[in-house]
Amino acid sequence: MKNMIQAGTSSAAFRFPVYIQSAASIAGKKEGEGPLKDSFDRIIDDPLLGKDSWESAESMLQKKASALAVKKAGLDTKDIRLAFAGDLLAQTTASSFGTAGMGIPFYGLYAACSTMGEALSLGAMAVSAGFGDHILCATSSHFASAEKEFRYPLGYGNQRPLSATWTVTGSGACIIGSDPPETENSPDSLRSGNRCAVITGITAGRIIDFGFRDSLNMGACMAPAACDTILRNLSDFGRTPSDYDAIVTGDLGIVGRNILLDMLRKNGTDIGDIHQDCGLMIYDNSTQDTHSGGSGCGCSAVVLAACLLPRIIGGQWKRMLFIPTGAMLSKVTYNEGASVPGIAHAVVIELMEI
Amino acid sequence: MKNMIQAGTSSAAFRFPVYIQSAASIAGKKEGEGPLKDSFDRIIDDPLLGKDSWESAESMLQKKASALAVKKAGLDTKDIRLAFAGDLLAQTTASSFGTAGMGIPFYGLYAACSTMGEALSLGAMAVSAGFGDHILCATSSHFASAEKEFRYPLGYGNQRPLSATWTVTGSGACIIGSDPPETENSPDSLRSGNRCAVITGITAGRIIDFGFRDSLNMGACMAPAACDTILRNLSDFGRTPSDYDAIVTGDLGIVGRNILLDMLRKNGTDIGDIHQDCGLMIYDNSTQDTHSGGSGCGCSAVVLAACLLPRIIGGQWKRMLFIPTGAMLSKVTYNEGASVPGIAHAVVIELMEI
Repeated sequence: MKNMIQAGTSSAAFRFPVYIQSAASIAGKKEGEGPLKDSFDRIIDDPLLGKDSWESAESMLQKKASALAVKKAGLDTKDIRLAFAGDLLAQTTASSFGTAGMGIPFYGLYAACSTMGEALSLGAMAVSAGFGDHILCATSSHFASAEKEFRYPLGYGNQRPLSATWTVTGSGACIIGSDPPETENSPDSLRSGNRCAVITGITAGRIIDFGFRDSLNMGACMAPAACDTILRNLSDFGRTPSDYDAIVTGDLGIVGRNILLDMLRKNGTDIGDIHQDCGLMIYDNSTQDTHSGGSGCGCSAVVLAACLLPRIIGGQWKRMLFIPTGAMLSKVTYNEGASVPGIAHAVVIELMEI
Repeated sequence: MKNMIQAGTSSAAFRFPVYIQSAASIAGKKEGEGPLKDSFDRIIDDPLLGKDSWESAESMLQKKASALAVKKAGLDTKDIRLAFAGDLLAQTTASSFGTAGMGIPFYGLYAACSTMGEALSLGAMAVSAGFGDHILCATSSHFASAEKEFRYPLGYGNQRPLSATWTVTGSGACIIGSDPPETENSPDSLRSGNRCAVITGITAGRIIDFGFRDSLNMGACMAPAACDTILRNLSDFGRTPSDYDAIVTGDLGIVGRNILLDMLRKNGTDIGDIHQDCGLMIYDNSTQDTHSGGSGCGCSAVVLAACLLPRIIGGQWKRMLFIPTGAMLSKVTYNEGASVPGIAHAVVIELMEI
């Protein structure tokens, strides 16, 4: 008997749920001043984390979040059979020198800011196939390393248009496996009494290219991909939006959210009441000057760990569609005039009472 | 019943084998003048493939190889449920604009030159879990885009030391699934009578960092990782080297091969008789001036498709350990003085008579 069942054209349902055994979030100073300040596990005041480059700082950030997720699950690094991780930097060096530096067998991923969706999807697939009891999924981003990688060195002091998002300095990590978390009710445990968070299905993203060429309007680049994945998820699982308590995109921001809601309405689907966006949850734009919202593959990862999963095990949400969104931006292809296609990997996360 | 069985600390064995249903290779002009010239499916004489940038050329190369693998399996793009692909460029743009541009749900990977090992491993895991009947795994590299990405623009005419490898211009792609290839004995089919090539196990790579800092000696950076993966594979599966007809690394070249053989001997393991390296098979160094050998994540992929898999279904080899090797090089971290760690993902490929 296969543990994973094909659903529709591009989704999979898990016959046995994949448990999220722990989740950790470490955020930067600016994120630590925002609406979720009391929810992060740790807030890092020094953006360099004692290192001498932004890249090393981000690696350290990701490694710390991964180590914390292992600890919160009551495990040791040697208990982790496999790690899936990624980040935004060229050749994913934040992960190669970060999570991968822990010595765990490691599969590196790249899906821009949707990487946490890819990591959880492939991690869940591996758990479902029987590969491991404990699998680590992690992503990170850092405002300074991302600006250097994709746009302008910070010292240039360039002006940011209102469509621009602010790359989150943060890293989120989860341990997933085939059994529920062992410890009940400890502050570290992702289990509240008999309530656990489980992954029950995934919808793989497709590259959707509407031809946008604006590296300072990532929301517009990603919204069509989010629309595509949401519609395929609903169709593949035979659901309507009301079957979800929340549909949470990664980092569309104000601009991208409006495009997504419009596109879905034109397809006869209204998710206005239940849509949330991690990029809009992490900052208070009225006081933090973050323009369209937060972004980066750390954004959805820290919001998932700090805020979304607690809502599941707290019983506020019974079923959530978590869809980190990514813009396939590269400074080389961008400067050569190529478009910025989008992708969005969806994960169905549900409350399970065991 | 789980289809995948944990083997040792970091490997998995498949209860039901994963069939390689087709394999395609497209190589550049220099590769097409080497020892494997008669084995490639296609040789591309124009290194730009009619495009106006090296990056676009590599995307086109990868897309052509993926499309050819689909065609050789007797399938249509819409029959492919999932694609796993990667390349060496920042933000894996050759894949985002290449294979991912085919509209297939897509998981992007980064494991440097070991990416074909990662793609086949995760693809096999997905097949094993029940995700898809036909899954596409593809990687590419291009001499000119890689030199631009990692070292010097070609116009500089820099001198290359003897330890340097030559990045292969080429792309290899495979379709894998839970059933054998349908067509027997056609020149396109990866089935000879009742003989098929199947994936029976995988060993996930770990990042191994010996502190090497030489971007022109990738073989030395990768050899320790290849050694680590080979020893874990042998231990996890309870095998000795004589249980394999061939152990084929990706692109260690002359320098890396010698280091690997020495390291293994110090660990009491001798694979000298059965070791081959794709980077040493693809060029004739005596006439092609390629120094230590070929490299790039297209290297192991095209050699697998053009040369290794035909040896399996031809009956010359019954069981092969295929281990693409990768050096986690990035020009940013390299210029910041960081080391170049290695990784190697292993796939056990066997002859199966159905």
